[in-house]
Order: sequence, then structure tokens, then C-alpha cells
Amino acid sequence: MSKIISGFSKLSKEEKIDWLAENYFNSQPEIIQTIKQYWNVDEKLQQLHDDFIENTISNFYMPYGIAPNFVINGREYVVPMVVEESSVVAAASKVAKYWSTRGGFKTKVISTTKIGQVHFIYAGDKSDLEKYFQANKTELYAATASITKNMEKRGGGILDIELADKTDKLSDYYQLHVTFETKDSMGANFINSCLEAIAKRFQNEEIEVIMSILSNYVPECIVQAEVSCPIEDLGGENPEKFAYKFEQAVKIAEIEPYRAVTHNKGIMNGIDAVVLATGNDFRAIESGAHAYAARNGEYSSLTYCEVKDGIFRFWIEIPLALGTVGGLTALHPMAKLSLDMMQKPSARTLMQIIAAAGLAQNFAALRALTTKGIQHGHMKMHLMNILNQHNATATEKDQVVAYFENRTVSHSAVVEKLNALRKPSIQWVDFSNEDEVRTQLQKLNSDSNPSFGNMNAQQMIEHLSAVTQIPNGNWKVDIFVEDEKAARRKPFLNTDNEIQVGFKASFLSENPVPLKFNSIDEAIDDLISQVKLFFEVFEKDTSRKVTHPFFGELDFEYWKKFQVKHFTHHFKQFGLV
Amino acid sequence: MSKIISGFSKLSKEEKIDWLAENYFNSQPEIIQTIKQYWNVDEKLQQLHDDFIENTISNFYMPYGIAPNFVINGREYVVPMVVEESSVVAAASKVAKYWSTRGGFKTKVISTTKIGQVHFIYAGDKSDLEKYFQANKTELYAATASITKNMEKRGGGILDIELADKTDKLSDYYQLHVTFETKDSMGANFINSCLEAIAKRFQNEEIEVIMSILSNYVPECIVQAEVSCPIEDLGGENPEKFAYKFEQAVKIAEIEPYRAVTHNKGIMNGIDAVVLATGNDFRAIESGAHAYAARNGEYSSLTYCEVKDGIFRFWIEIPLALGTVGGLTALHPMAKLSLDMMQKPSARTLMQIIAAAGLAQNFAALRALTTKGIQHGHMKMHLMNILNQHNATATEKDQVVAYFENRTVSHSAVVEKLNALRKPSIQWVDFSNEDEVRTQLQKLNSDSNPSFGNMNAQQMIEHLSAVTQIPNGNWKVDIFVEDEKAARRKPFLNTDNEIQVGFKASFLSENPVPLKFNSIDEAIDDLISQVKLFFEVFEKDTSRKVTHPFFGELDFEYWKKFQVKHFTHHFKQFGLV
Repeated sequence: MSKIISGFSKLSKEEKIDWLAENYFNSQPEIIQTIKQYWNVDEKLQQLHDDFIENTISNFYMPYGIAPNFVINGREYVVPMVVEESSVVAAASKVAKYWSTRGGFKTKVISTTKIGQVHFIYAGDKSDLEKYFQANKTELYAATASITKNMEKRGGGILDIELADKTDKLSDYYQLHVTFETKDSMGANFINSCLEAIAKRFQNEEIEVIMSILSNYVPECIVQAEVSCPIEDLGGENPEKFAYKFEQAVKIAEIEPYRAVTHNKGIMNGIDAVVLATGNDFRAIESGAHAYAARNGEYSSLTYCEVKDGIFRFWIEIPLALGTVGGLTALHPMAKLSLDMMQKPSARTLMQIIAAAGLAQNFAALRALTTKGIQHGHMKMHLMNILNQHNATATEKDQVVAYFENRTVSHSAVVEKLNALRKPSIQWVDFSNEDEVRTQLQKLNSDSNPSFGNMNAQQMIEHLSAVTQIPNGNWKVDIFVEDEKAARRKPFLNTDNEIQVGFKASFLSENPVPLKFNSIDEAIDDLISQVKLFFEVFEKDTSRKVTHPFFGELDFEYWKKFQVKHFTHHFKQFGLV
Repeated sequence: MSKIISGFSKLSKEEKIDWLAENYFNSQPEIIQTIKQYWNVDEKLQQLHDDFIENTISNFYMPYGIAPNFVINGREYVVPMVVEESSVVAAASKVAKYWSTRGGFKTKVISTTKIGQVHFIYAGDKSDLEKYFQANKTELYAATASITKNMEKRGGGILDIELADKTDKLSDYYQLHVTFETKDSMGANFINSCLEAIAKRFQNEEIEVIMSILSNYVPECIVQAEVSCPIEDLGGENPEKFAYKFEQAVKIAEIEPYRAVTHNKGIMNGIDAVVLATGNDFRAIESGAHAYAARNGEYSSLTYCEVKDGIFRFWIEIPLALGTVGGLTALHPMAKLSLDMMQKPSARTLMQIIAAAGLAQNFAALRALTTKGIQHGHMKMHLMNILNQHNATATEKDQVVAYFENRTVSHSAVVEKLNALRKPSIQWVDFSNEDEVRTQLQKLNSDSNPSFGNMNAQQMIEHLSAVTQIPNGNWKVDIFVEDEKAARRKPFLNTDNEIQVGFKASFLSENPVPLKFNSIDEAIDDLISQVKLFFEVFEKDTSRKVTHPFFGELDFEYWKKFQVKHFTHHFKQFGLV
């Protein structure tokens, strides 16, 4: 049945959710519960949020955090951040604190000009177009009078209207390139309304307007933020080396686009978090910033570093077209709170705070990258996320966090550890203990059934013996394992994990081989003698290495680890451990 | 008192909020209320969200909307979107519906390779480095074995490790350039952990590792999405013209960076909304996409259009490194819901859905821009936002929406209209009605007090008369107004608004001029004779235009409009209306 629907936007919120559950969730009631659990209990407040966009069915919670201790141009700020990525707020807070005792952030706005364009096609004579433009320029301003009235009261408005010839790039293509000052508003609606009014007045039978629209490329709406201090004040064990590596890291981002993109991505972690928290449009900020990073023909860094005359200096230059009035800034109660928290900044002040937040984030990233590596800091939060995902208890969390204090966190490693904590601990078989091996194996007889596989008890014992003959040098297996594969497999032997049930190495034949001995007891005797030989050959030559057909070249230590796992695996197969 | 604080992160959530209120809000209780009203009533659920980042004090609600009717490679989808900007979800829904009857979206993944680099400084002989690299390459793979184990089970892992010489750009700078396949995970932690393990194994006394980090520049992790149909199927009044203008608009974005940035920003409106809804990292996606847009040396469009042989074809090519496992995707209940809604897509499928959402958004923007203009669609939501901000009632909303059906929406215009609805209507003075003017003014005497300004009643009457002498040609005011200023001011005369209380034109002297007549009655007679003359001179010469010192050159109609406002202003000053 087709799920194409007409008039969806006209359904009530409840009806939309019902349609969704019916068509894409087989009407599972828990889906509706998930959606509604995020509704605010205050209906009026929820209605406000529902009205921000169309087809709203719920709220997507973005964590709202705060970073204290920012000192910017001598003034203290707490910076609100909305971001779903862990470590961003922690990094901002730490770096803000760090620089608060080293002079803080120094920031300044370079310019605040914004841009919009009327794009049109004109096939006639260029000089006629120029004359027409000059003759009507005043009228173009006049056409926007009702729109610009209030903006002018606030000191903004249209700065200039220019005619631009782009016919060298596209036939008959010209622009009206219009510059604006929009003061404390981001100004998108203002600029677009002005441009459309200008275009309407400007077009004639020869001028075909293709579109009229603001540009999010704002290379003349620029802010700078900087931190600096004497190298020795940087602290740490070796401030000179820190400064050197840090400067190299920034230089690498300046000349290597693959690095620059991620370098700037980290800056935007800080920038966007405050942009979002203040109800500004992060897509606009992102596009303007990255295009600016590419302005010289190759994508490059938005920050710079200089270590000179004993001074470490690190700064950012970035275009930020922001608003502190209009849009969501006053409508969204948390956006309003964000602005109030920063003492109701003007757009110019907000530009400076956000630039400082971006610089702080980059400083944190580069400091981590050039010292302990980025994963060290990331991993604690990553670890907590994985633990939450697997519903770890508080005790489990403590144990796992302690375990990974000095270990590499990966999703699989954490889950493995968690599973290890949860499952009863493994009783490893001490294969070197003759008495234990014999006592256990003697419990078996021809009726003993394995819990997996198709070997009987004696076949299993003979198999353990046969495999022991490989390190002993008496069974030459013809299959070789590639170095790369072996390198990846070998570390398994260092883990606490068992050989998986059902695992079968490719060098073994599909079916059990014919029995070699007449009884289980004879087979046990043979196995024990092979184990004895195993210790003898390695103890005679401690540098001895023998290739395992699955794990590659192993020394004595690794062969012992393998034997423990292998014996345990087969003892378990017959319920002996 | 300094607001610098130590150990902030260790405070409880309540303590953090108290500190914030105390230090930045003078302990206003309503601030704490605003923050807490967004807490979920389910404590455990709230704890989950609090743990995503650090210093969390509340949730920032992002609206969660859904766009039905996407047909992608023949399969129907409802697309979840998290975005604070109005019109985005509406545009996606409309365009999805539109193309659902024209073959839907055709998408394909071109490649999914991801990249990471170990950046290092090496001052020695290059051939020695190459030898060292080749000799240790296997070991570098081996160093990641415990990390890659699970990824390899899923068919991913390290694809290649290459040594790159970057010394032409920065002295002694080399890289290990590593390529990865990360399957359904975004892979940031996996890649970074691998790189750090590789770097640790690789470094030696001569090799100084500066940093090891993934790249968000992923020009080999590319997806395409396309729509196409015969031109005549595009519909509308003139499909040929629509196709022509649309194609021109895309071409403009290809060659003009100012346009390309906003063009792509619109694409990202759609892309990021789904990226956010699925718990992916939009900063990573943004940086990768914009850097890709700048890959050929000049920032350009991510979409393309071709109108050829009667077929309209429109497509996008964009790098999207996404995950459908790991990170927030399973942790955030609404992110999980988003993935479930799209039938648990693989990362490859999600790439295709998101590319389609981006293409749809761009189609909507270009369609609006090249036809009715972007503001038409935007404005309805903008209007509702302004109305909500000013607590408009349902009746007021209806009236204002109807009023702006065919008018330009601006913040000031909406507020003006709303205020007009709210305030008692103005009683305009009919200055041409001799009887009315005389009757009203005769109510005044030397004791009459103005509600503003410092003129007495007779001075006010003589002032009205004097100003009327300007159009009559008997008072040559020496101050001229610039054309541009006048052009902006003149439209005010067409509005329903009154001259502001306290307004004083600069051509008037600061204090009232000496009285000219002996009594109020004489002044009234004079005023009435000047008004008569006013009508005579204009009726004698209907093309007559006289410059108003504030509003510029006005004809009869505009002068009459001015007189109505001016008389009303001063009648009101003395409580006559």
C-alpha cells in the first residue's frame, strides 16, 4: 500500500503521529510513547515550540551546557553552549580558565558589512544598462523606504548599490551587488525584502531578474580573537616544546587541506554551540566560515600561530553574521536566557564572544593533539556513552572506567569488558598440570557427548595432542597465514577471551580424522607425553619460534597462551570446566 | 567580585544553576524556573541526556518535524528533520510530493572511503624514511589489531597506509596518509584510535609525531542524488521558462561564490536537519561539504542542472561521512526513532536519503527564488513568529495575516500593523473643511496647555499657517533635503501613521517665533485664508510641485497627505481630537 499522503500538513499533531505509527511502525504503541515523552507538560510552552517549524511532532533535546571563566577584553563571561558532542563544553571551560590567568581573550570586530545580490540576465548594450542603473539608483533606494525605515532608526540600512558585470563568466549575466549594515539583527529577512523591492523596481522588458537573495558569504563581517603570553607562562613540563609543536600543528593546517578541514571543524564545534544557544542559524555561519577558509584558492586554517621573541600568540579571524534581535533570539526562551546570561550583548559583542569560544576550542584540540592525543580526552565520555547504551550499573561503570584508565577505548573492547564482568569468570585449564589434565580427561568415556562439534571424547584428546605436535615440530601443517592477518589475530591470545564455540581453523579437516589409539587412556598418555615434549623443546631453545597455522609465528609465551585457550575450549566442550 | 570559579564541573547540576543565577542573574528565581521548565519529568531519561555532554543544566528544544512522501529509488520514506528554521520541513515535504509523481529521487553511493593522517616532522634522508616505512608497514597494521578486530568482522578496517612527502609546503613535514572503510559507523573514534596506535608504533628518535587525527575532508565518501523529467511534466504556467530560469540560477551558483555559499547553505538546511535527527555530527558534515565545494580553487555549487533534449535534470554530488551505529545514534531515543522511521538504514542508505533531502531543499529554494521570490514563502512563518513574540491573540493573527497577504512583511511593518489594531483608530483632521477647523480652533484660548512641546495655542495656529505658506510659495525655506533621504521619508505620507509626538523638523527654529497677530481669532482667519490659497495654487497648476524641507519634492496629493498629518498632529497637541 502506498504511503504517499496528501494534505499531511493540515493534520493535527496527534493525527500526524498516528499516521506515522501506522505507516512506518506497524502502529507500535511504544513509538507514540517515545515521541510524547518529550512533550513539555506546559501546553502553551509546547505550542510555542511546535510553531517554530512545520509538521512538528516532538522536541529533539540538545544538551544545554555552560562554560564559565571566559575573560574577554577584561570582562568575565559564562558562555552557553548547545552541542551533542561530548568534550566540547569541557574543553571550552578548561581553556577559558587557563587563559583567564594569562590575560584572557583580546577580541575586536573588523567590519560588519553584509551583502545581497539581484542576479539578472541582460542581453543589450552594457553602456545603456549603466545609464539606466545610474538614472534609477535613487529610485532603487526609494523602493525600500518602508522596509529600511526602522533599520535606519537603529543606524543601519543599505550602504551601497553597485552594478556588477559578470558576463565573462556567464553570458549576459549581471548583478546588483548591494551592501548592508543590519546592526543587531542578523538581517536575512530585511536584506531579502530590500533586494526583492529593488529588483521589482529595477526590472524592465530587457532585464530578466533570475533571483534576489542575500549572501551568506560575508568576508566583510569579520571578527578577530587572540590569546598570547610569554612562552614560559604556558606552563607544563616543557613550554618551549609545547609552543613549537603547537605552532607546527597550526602551520600544517594552513598548508594541508585534509588537516585544515578538521582543524576548522573543531573551531566550529565551539562556534556553533554558542550560535545554537543564542537562536542563530548555524548553517549560515558554517557556510560563510568555510567559504572564507577557501578564499585564497586552497582550503586553509581559520586560526594562526606565531612564536616569536619569546611570545606565544594564537589568533582567529572569522566571518560571523549574527543577530541578537529578531528571529528565534527572543522567541525561544532558552535562546533569550543565553543572551541574558551574556548580559544582553550587541551583535558586535556576540561576534567577539563566539570568536573567543571558537579559538578556545581550537586551542584545546591542538593542545590535546600535540600532547596526549585527541582520544585520551574523548574517550572518557565515549566510554560513558557506551556504558549507558548497554545499561551498565553504577558498579559496572566504576569497574570499567578503572579498567580503561590506561587502555585504549573502543566500542568492542568496552563491550567485551562489560560482558566479561557480567559473565561468570572463566576457569582456565592449566594444561601443564599433568595430574589435573589426566584426572579431568579420565572422566570421559565413549558415551560422553560434546556440547558442540562432532568429535567424540577420544577424538578430542587426540586432536589436542596433534595440535601440540605443531610447536613440537612433529606436525608440519602446509597452510601458511599471511603476515598481516596473523598480526591482527595474534593479540587475541593476550586477551581474557575464550575461543569461540563453533570456531574451526581452516587447516583442520572438515570431519574428525580416524582414531590413532585403542582407548581413551592411551590417548591421554600420548597427550601428556606431547605436553612434556612441548616444554622440553622450548626450554632447550628459548628463542624457538614456530608458526601457528592460524595465529602466525609464536614464541614459547604465546604458544603457552594458545594452549591454555585451546585446552579450555575442548575441556568445556565436554563439560569438564 | 570576580566570577572566576574553580572546580565548576564537579558541582551538581543544581549547584551549577545556583552559581549561574547568583553570578549572572542577581539570583532571579524566574531564571531557575526557565531552566527547569525544560527538564524532563522522567528523571532517568533526563539523566541520560545530561550525561551526553559536560556542565549540562537543561535541554535546548530543537523542533522535530517529519517530511513524508519521499520516493527514493522506488521506495517510500518519511524523513525526520530537526531544524529551528521555518519553511525547511514544509519545503522538503512539498518537493518530495512533487517528485513522487515524476519518478522520485534516483540516488547512488559512489564511494565510502574515509581518511586519517599521522602528521610528523622528519629532518633526515627521505630514502631512509621510505625504507623504514616499508620495513615496518606490517607492524603498523599489527599495532591496530585489537582496535580493528570488530570492524573487520563487519567488513571494514584499514584499506591502506601511505607515506606522503609534504616537504615542498612545510620543512621536514611528512604524513602517513591512511584510508579506512568504517561501514555503518561514522568511525571517528575508530579512525583516531587506529592512527594513534600507528603513530605510537611508527615514531622513533628521528620522527616527531605532531598529531594523529582523522580528516573530515572526505572527497572519496561521495553520494549522488538526482531528479529528472520531461520539461512539459514540470507543470506550472510556463514549464520551458521555469526550466530556463532554474538552470540559469544553478549556473550562477556554479560561477559566483557569493551566490554559491548561500545556494549550498540552503542545501545544508535539508542535510543538517536529517543529520541532527539521526544523531550524526553536523559540523563534520558541514566542513566536508563546503571544502568539497571549494575543491577546484573557487567555491562553487554542490548541485548541477541540465536542460537538454527536452529533459530537465537536476542533481547533487556531496561527501557525507555518516554513521547509523555508534555515537548518539542508538543512545538518543529520538535519534534511534529517526533511524527506525527510515527502516533502520545502513550508512550507505542514509547517505542516499540525506542527499535526496539536500537536493529537495535546493529545488524548493531555487523554485521559490526564480518564481515568487524567497520571501513569499518565508514570510508567513516569519509573520507568525513576530506575532507570537508580541503575544498576538488568535483574532489579531487572523487580521494581520490577511493584511499581509499581498504586502511585504518586515518586523517593523508587522509591529506597526499590530499596534494599529490595538490602539484606538485615529481621527484625522479634514484641514480643507473651513467650518470644522474654525470650530475646533475657537475652543482654544491663551490658557490652553499643549500636551507636548512649548508653543501656546496661537503660536501653534500661526505655525500651521506658516508651514502652509511653503507650498503656497510664500515661505522659501533655505534648507534642502538630499534626494536619497527624501526618497526614504516620502513613503511615510502613504501610511496610516501619525507624526510622532516630539518630532521637530530641523528647518524650524528651536523656540517659537514671535506672534504675528493680535488674537487667536485673527490667526485662525489667516490660517483659513492660507488653506484656501493652498487649494487655489495647486488647482490652477495641477503639475505644480514644491519641495518640502523634510519630505522633499511633493505634488498636490502628497502635500494634502502631509497637511492632514500635520493638522492632526497639532490638533492632538491641544486635545482637539
